[in-house]
Amino acid sequence: MRELKVGLIGGGFMGRAHSLAYALAPIAADIGATVTKEVLVDATPELAATLAQQLGWRSSSTDWRELVERPDIDIIDICTPPQFHAEIAFAAVAAGKHVFCEKPITNDSAEAARLTQAALDAGVVTQVGFNYRHAPAISFARDLLASGRLGTPLQFRASYLQEVGFGADPNRWRASRATGGSGAVGDIGSHIIDMAELMFGDIRRVSARIRTMAVGETGWAEEGGQVDDDGRIDDSGVWLAEFANGALGSFAVSSYASGRKNRVYFEADGTKGSVEFNWNSREELKVSYVDEAKDHKGFRTIHTNNEHPDGWWRLAGLGTGYPEISAIQFQKFVRAIVDGGQADPDFGHATHVQQVVEAIIAAAASDSWVDVAPRQDRS
Amino acid sequence: MRELKVGLIGGGFMGRAHSLAYALAPIAADIGATVTKEVLVDATPELAATLAQQLGWRSSSTDWRELVERPDIDIIDICTPPQFHAEIAFAAVAAGKHVFCEKPITNDSAEAARLTQAALDAGVVTQVGFNYRHAPAISFARDLLASGRLGTPLQFRASYLQEVGFGADPNRWRASRATGGSGAVGDIGSHIIDMAELMFGDIRRVSARIRTMAVGETGWAEEGGQVDDDGRIDDSGVWLAEFANGALGSFAVSSYASGRKNRVYFEADGTKGSVEFNWNSREELKVSYVDEAKDHKGFRTIHTNNEHPDGWWRLAGLGTGYPEISAIQFQKFVRAIVDGGQADPDFGHATHVQQVVEAIIAAAASDSWVDVAPRQDRS
Amino acid sequence: MRELKVGLIGGGFMGRAHSLAYALAPIAADIGATVTKEVLVDATPELAATLAQQLGWRSSSTDWRELVERPDIDIIDICTPPQFHAEIAFAAVAAGKHVFCEKPITNDSAEAARLTQAALDAGVVTQVGFNYRHAPAISFARDLLASGRLGTPLQFRASYLQEVGFGADPNRWRASRATGGSGAVGDIGSHIIDMAELMFGDIRRVSARIRTMAVGETGWAEEGGQVDDDGRIDDSGVWLAEFANGALGSFAVSSYASGRKNRVYFEADGTKGSVEFNWNSREELKVSYVDEAKDHKGFRTIHTNNEHPDGWWRLAGLGTGYPEISAIQFQKFVRAIVDGGQADPDFGHATHVQQVVEAIIAAAASDSWVDVAPRQDRS
Amino acid sequence: MRELKVGLIGGGFMGRAHSLAYALAPIAADIGATVTKEVLVDATPELAATLAQQLGWRSSSTDWRELVERPDIDIIDICTPPQFHAEIAFAAVAAGKHVFCEKPITNDSAEAARLTQAALDAGVVTQVGFNYRHAPAISFARDLLASGRLGTPLQFRASYLQEVGFGADPNRWRASRATGGSGAVGDIGSHIIDMAELMFGDIRRVSARIRTMAVGETGWAEEGGQVDDDGRIDDSGVWLAEFANGALGSFAVSSYASGRKNRVYFEADGTKGSVEFNWNSREELKVSYVDEAKDHKGFRTIHTNNEHPDGWWRLAGLGTGYPEISAIQFQKFVRAIVDGGQADPDFGHATHVQQVVEAIIAAAASDSWVDVAPRQDRS
Repeated sequence: MRELKVGLIGGGFMGRAHSLAYALAPIAADIGATVTKEVLVDATPELAATLAQQLGWRSSSTDWRELVERPDIDIIDICTPPQFHAEIAFAAVAAGKHVFCEKPITNDSAEAARLTQAALDAGVVTQVGFNYRHAPAISFARDLLASGRLGTPLQFRASYLQEVGFGADPNRWRASRATGGSGAVGDIGSHIIDMAELMFGDIRRVSARIRTMAVGETGWAEEGGQVDDDGRIDDSGVWLAEFANGALGSFAVSSYASGRKNRVYFEADGTKGSVEFNWNSREELKVSYVDEAKDHKGFRTIHTNNEHPDGWWRLAGLGTGYPEISAIQFQKFVRAIVDGGQADPDFGHATHVQQVVEAIIAAAASDSWVDVAPRQDRS
Repeated sequence: MRELKVGLIGGGFMGRAHSLAYALAPIAADIGATVTKEVLVDATPELAATLAQQLGWRSSSTDWRELVERPDIDIIDICTPPQFHAEIAFAAVAAGKHVFCEKPITNDSAEAARLTQAALDAGVVTQVGFNYRHAPAISFARDLLASGRLGTPLQFRASYLQEVGFGADPNRWRASRATGGSGAVGDIGSHIIDMAELMFGDIRRVSARIRTMAVGETGWAEEGGQVDDDGRIDDSGVWLAEFANGALGSFAVSSYASGRKNRVYFEADGTKGSVEFNWNSREELKVSYVDEAKDHKGFRTIHTNNEHPDGWWRLAGLGTGYPEISAIQFQKFVRAIVDGGQADPDFGHATHVQQVVEAIIAAAASDSWVDVAPRQDRS
Repeated sequence: MRELKVGLIGGGFMGRAHSLAYALAPIAADIGATVTKEVLVDATPELAATLAQQLGWRSSSTDWRELVERPDIDIIDICTPPQFHAEIAFAAVAAGKHVFCEKPITNDSAEAARLTQAALDAGVVTQVGFNYRHAPAISFARDLLASGRLGTPLQFRASYLQEVGFGADPNRWRASRATGGSGAVGDIGSHIIDMAELMFGDIRRVSARIRTMAVGETGWAEEGGQVDDDGRIDDSGVWLAEFANGALGSFAVSSYASGRKNRVYFEADGTKGSVEFNWNSREELKVSYVDEAKDHKGFRTIHTNNEHPDGWWRLAGLGTGYPEISAIQFQKFVRAIVDGGQADPDFGHATHVQQVVEAIIAAAASDSWVDVAPRQDRS
Repeated sequence: MRELKVGLIGGGFMGRAHSLAYALAPIAADIGATVTKEVLVDATPELAATLAQQLGWRSSSTDWRELVERPDIDIIDICTPPQFHAEIAFAAVAAGKHVFCEKPITNDSAEAARLTQAALDAGVVTQVGFNYRHAPAISFARDLLASGRLGTPLQFRASYLQEVGFGADPNRWRASRATGGSGAVGDIGSHIIDMAELMFGDIRRVSARIRTMAVGETGWAEEGGQVDDDGRIDDSGVWLAEFANGALGSFAVSSYASGRKNRVYFEADGTKGSVEFNWNSREELKVSYVDEAKDHKGFRTIHTNNEHPDGWWRLAGLGTGYPEISAIQFQKFVRAIVDGGQADPDFGHATHVQQVVEAIIAAAASDSWVDVAPRQDRS
């Protein structure tokens, strides 16, 4: 069996999550390869060594450029703060490595497109960390739509709500554009854009309102919710979308939604049925069909198991957490490398999502509807 | 105790609902007057007589003009199809009657404004049938916002979803503008606009997309969701709102949402807390506060009882249905007549909601953000 | 159309609830008769007159014996404290009146049996106020079981939980056996026994534990939950049941369940499917079938409407409250009088439920399983 | 840092689950040791080798006796079918190994007591696989009870429901006592007994009904739910419990509960508050307090995070699955070995739970209440 050696760059929250996922993935299912957690890179020798030991990597380093050039490394996994993603990814692709990169690969869609092209030219497999979409319940929803069980898409409503803004350090890097923060639209909104397009196809036009509700803790009280952000990322946004197939979409994100615990939520209606998903009940998909008997109409709550796409366990209800969903994501990535195909979602898809994000920002800034550039064919 | 005699015009679904509410209102609480169900008007003598008997009215008639002029009648209650609302309301106001009118009082905000002024000039009490807002849980949410418990308003997300479109008669009067249909935005969307403004204050600007998904049963299959409507009302809409206080709003309505059972839903976030309401669990308000202890954060589910505004029962969880909420609505109307004040929501408020609806329609038609006319002071 | 004149004895909470129900019942559906709220009886002339006016009764009285003898009265409706139920019911039956009596008709099953026989001998219609069972969702569950859709009954789990004990007046009449209190098992437990037998058939044997958790506010702290009750009713109980068909049951009641808002709850499993009901979502029945497709197994949430037994509204999700369920109860009672049949649940059924309650109390007292007397055939 | 080498016996479902947990545990948190997955034992060389490769073990074997004697092995982890648990555990303890054993350690409480004593004599750490109790939400509930926040325990209601019986192979080893099946009471009921005692303290007496609903697929149809089981395990049971502190308990288990997806559920009431837990929403604990403000009473839904005992993630709502809960279980086991204390739940606790299970079985067989032997002090 083929061995794939991974070099992980960045041992923070995401590096830990990926480490868990690499540990789970080959145990949970046959992925056609062994995956070796070879090198962990972080900022200082001490930190890198400590993290490598904790997270189960064979060795550590502070030099990602050297890592990228090592001939024994097959996969570069990028978990740094976002401002470094693109530079590392370009170098990894140039060195012929398969690249898994956390989102956003860059906050500039033109750069993302160049990076996508570079990966295609190099013939390497790329994947971007839109992890939530890999929940079996979402894969099941996608299949129901793709197979026509839900009919023609009509309306998609989604929100991604958190309360992380309250009490957070105002000087955290995530809150500043200069240090790579994407803002709520780019950071969490991109996940629901990804899900929307996974199910309903591409978005064609958008209209939006975006706010930076807080500069520090008291901003809103004095400013009525509208403050000059001075480089601060947005933390609240709403947008409408018109899909290419004519369906309508409504979206909302916020970092200041009290009581919302990483709540990724969507409802999707078609002419034959509807689905509802809530990440806080991520094993369940709620499904309603129009053609049910008159006295049996309503949503059924389906707990996913191995009867559903990407499901592991025969026994529904055992419990699927964040690490398992991440493990599914890496199973697909490794499978694509082993089988010689393309991973999904790849850099090309990430480029498109970034274009939607940029259209939303442009729509909010210009007070008008903005077209999303059509997805380009692979060259 | 004062006796108030009511003349009801229109004995269809809404006439029945109002009849139930008049029966309940004085039993459930002291409203300061007795209410007599005096006359029911409908199209033919037979129908009017049968309905009067079934719904508990003393007599019947086919002549609403005569009814409006009767000196013994105190209240005119208008439950006809919408196309007749305004004409009857003008006549009733001119005759010095207090008027309860189902929504919309008219689909033309200018006419609504004239009607409002006529009622003010006549010194009569008016109320419009935004019934859902009278759920005690919503009144409680309004109080939490008004008292500052939820802090500064940040984001409001609402939807009103039904599945009534599926299998419905395509020739029903509700589906045609010519016979008074308001479309999903005007018909059901107006309720969530009403709730949004009840809690967050007035809406200032809107952007929107509106669709008529169906002309007959097969429209969407051939047309990809976009059909020429030829006088058909809209049945799907999404819009964004900017509130006067700077908060953001996201809204969706649909008549083709499989599995949705008259689902009126909203989430409202402030800087100190959030609330969530679902008409399908109308006795409950979910409330989350930012300042809870770190290990006790989350939404609490509060069942309303007589500790809450408009609540009847000491024992929470007994059950509050559509008729009870309607009865609360009429308690407020009668109370305003008895006390000599203004009812809420009155024709002036209905005029404003209609202006928001028209702004949404204009925004959808013009592909741009549209300002809502500011609410006018009472003259 | 036949007119039925009602005499109501007792204008407290239940008298008010019945008054609401009588007001609703004939408007909501054709019940084949007009129902006149003729006389309200209460303790003093002032109270009776005030309540009659508030609750919409034509006249008032303090003399129930006289009322029972009045030839123009068709129905006697008994809403007094329980200690008076049986005496009034015997007199009403003897006078040839149809009798609606709140539960318990008596806390003594032998007396209940005599009362049942007296009513049969007199040829009058009787009904007892097991109101919750009339929720359309429960009638639907009963039909699913009766029609075999759920297969052979296997297990029934139910609870009725309240938090009314906390902070209640320790001297309230409901808390003392001497003034007619039935205890949690008899008062609220009887409802879930009624529902269990409605669906699974008769209970054959029981085992139980019953407690009086509180005498006053501090009883439990000193006594570890076990206090001498000195005439105090029980407020906490659990019991097992073996049904005549071999199915198993598990039950719990409590008046000291924090956060429980009149929560009547059951789960019923059969060999082909299961149902779940929660009074706090009383419009919904959750239903799961064994033979669903492998990737579509799970509970569906069905909102009742006029496709379901006893449902009024075409539009599911409008909202059904306590008064509407009570109105359904009276529709059935009146219908039985008009049609000349028997109402359900009648005094005979109430007698049987009382026998189950007594078996539970005996089982708890004797520390052993106790047989329930078989239901007797009508003589 | 200390290295602990594990020998795993049995590579089926539980062996896989433990393999996932060992992979996660040291990455997720500092456990004070490295854990090496050294040897996997299974029935044949091929199977053992394949499983070792898949599940990430260094080597494989078919000889558990040899493994137990290997001086380099620190921990023996027993995941075989239950009929072999005790024999292996005795040997491992005798060899001075720390032992993690899946439940039941044996279906005979006397043997369990001897095994417990042997482990105490050998001075080794033991733990039994009551995995569900390690959910942070349950640990939080336990702390709320232990700290007095919920007051004096009053009533505990629990069920563990599955639908695994439907369509299962009637000849599976789990369905026969001869091959070690514990029956629904012992297999899944033991988990809710464990949780009940974790929160409310020891159970003193029980009453019960137990059934084997199926022998093959058609048993119930012919037999009305009561069949001679001929060595078949029970698949349905209900029981009552009296706790040593006077609180009451009600329990139910079933393998034939359509729509129930491994649903472990409990409600616990105290004099100051209540909690509710559902494994299908295992990140949440619902908590209600008696002393809330009158208009704020109700259950709050608390999502656990690192503010709660055993929680990993700062961000609530990320998602905790079966493997993570298992990893928490092994973190505690390893921590006990490293710190030199006792693990919880150890073999002594497992012995006690088995005594409760046997009392339930005896109560069902004898038709009477049966005392549970008091937990013995450590010798």
